Amino acid sequence: MLYPNNIKKKQISKNISYGNRGMDLEYLINEANNYYLANDIAIIYKRPTPIQINKVSFKNGKPEVIKGLFNQKSTLDYVGIYKGKYIDFDAKKTLNKTSFPLDNIHDHQIKHIKNVINHGGISFLIIEINNGIYLLPGNILIDFISRNFRKSIPYNYIVENGTLIEFGYSPIIDYIQAVDSVYLKKGE
Amino acid sequence: MLYPNNIKKKQISKNISYGNRGMDLEYLINEANNYYLANDIAIIYKRPTPIQINKVSFKNGKPEVIKGLFNQKSTLDYVGIYKGKYIDFDAKKTLNKTSFPLDNIHDHQIKHIKNVINHGGISFLIIEINNGIYLLPGNILIDFISRNFRKSIPYNYIVENGTLIEFGYSPIIDYIQAVDSVYLKKGE
Repeated sequence: MLYPNNIKKKQISKNISYGNRGMDLEYLINEANNYYLANDIAIIYKRPTPIQINKVSFKNGKPEVIKGLFNQKSTLDYVGIYKGKYIDFDAKKTLNKTSFPLDNIHDHQIKHIKNVINHGGISFLIIEINNGIYLLPGNILIDFISRNFRKSIPYNYIVENGTLIEFGYSPIIDYIQAVDSVYLKKGE
Repeated sequence: MLYPNNIKKKQISKNISYGNRGMDLEYLINEANNYYLANDIAIIYKRPTPIQINKVSFKNGKPEVIKGLFNQKSTLDYVGIYKGKYIDFDAKKTLNKTSFPLDNIHDHQIKHIKNVINHGGISFLIIEINNGIYLLPGNILIDFISRNFRKSIPYNYIVENGTLIEFGYSPIIDYIQAVDSVYLKKGE
């Protein structure tokens, strides 16, 4: 089965179409974040990649990095605020169709997710698998890891415990709706 | 007057001593953030400087930036969560003793501060001026800018409307105490 039953045919065709146009998950999330910012819905930015700058030169009076290393630990890629809540998440894509390999997430990232939840924030993963995009809440991820010795999360587990992010026109993936339905609508 | 009246002599000598040891404001804030993280008080990280990477090479199998430009807009330097609240702030130092020049803050940063406050977050500046370090709440900054055509905030205005961050042992500047007293103790 390529698609979960609750994706409509229209969404599938859109999905394939966007895939063909080379819109990757990061592009889609940035597009949604720009939409949320422009429409005053949420303020969510991608954290820049941490780079240790070793050498800087100047060109036309402007500083330019000449040597830098990608050797600093990052936390999760996206951070921001929505309806007064601290939001901190990462986006991961797997080409694997049957499961999401856990080596996609570093130990310090798992620790960060736990920390954020303990401090009252919202933390989750957005996972692209099998042509579907799911929000998997951080507590469900942590619970899975603590109760399993498996090295990957089965696809069906993600479908059953995550929330499908539907495709639309603008933004293409309106993931904040999934945040709403998982975190805010129940016991706001 | 070099120091506001409410800084004790002991704090002054500590301050000068730290200054002599070359501990700049960014170092002090990072030290505090590490302390808060290690002691599970708050999760606050410095946002990495956004760099547009133009060329990457590999050395011993590890990617290395060869050319990158510092040409992307950043928001504020620090972001995190404290007692369930979204925190977003910047740290600025001025050598000017009578006022804080507003050209230290970019227009898009002022807009970001407004945005964060409107979405229910906490946003402020930490200003080092005249050997004192102050938390100046974002709403006071915005109010000052909207009611004045001045290009700088007078030192006395910062002393009167900001909150002095006292020096201590560990962390050296326990700025979260100022966050507590300004934002959380009154009407939590």
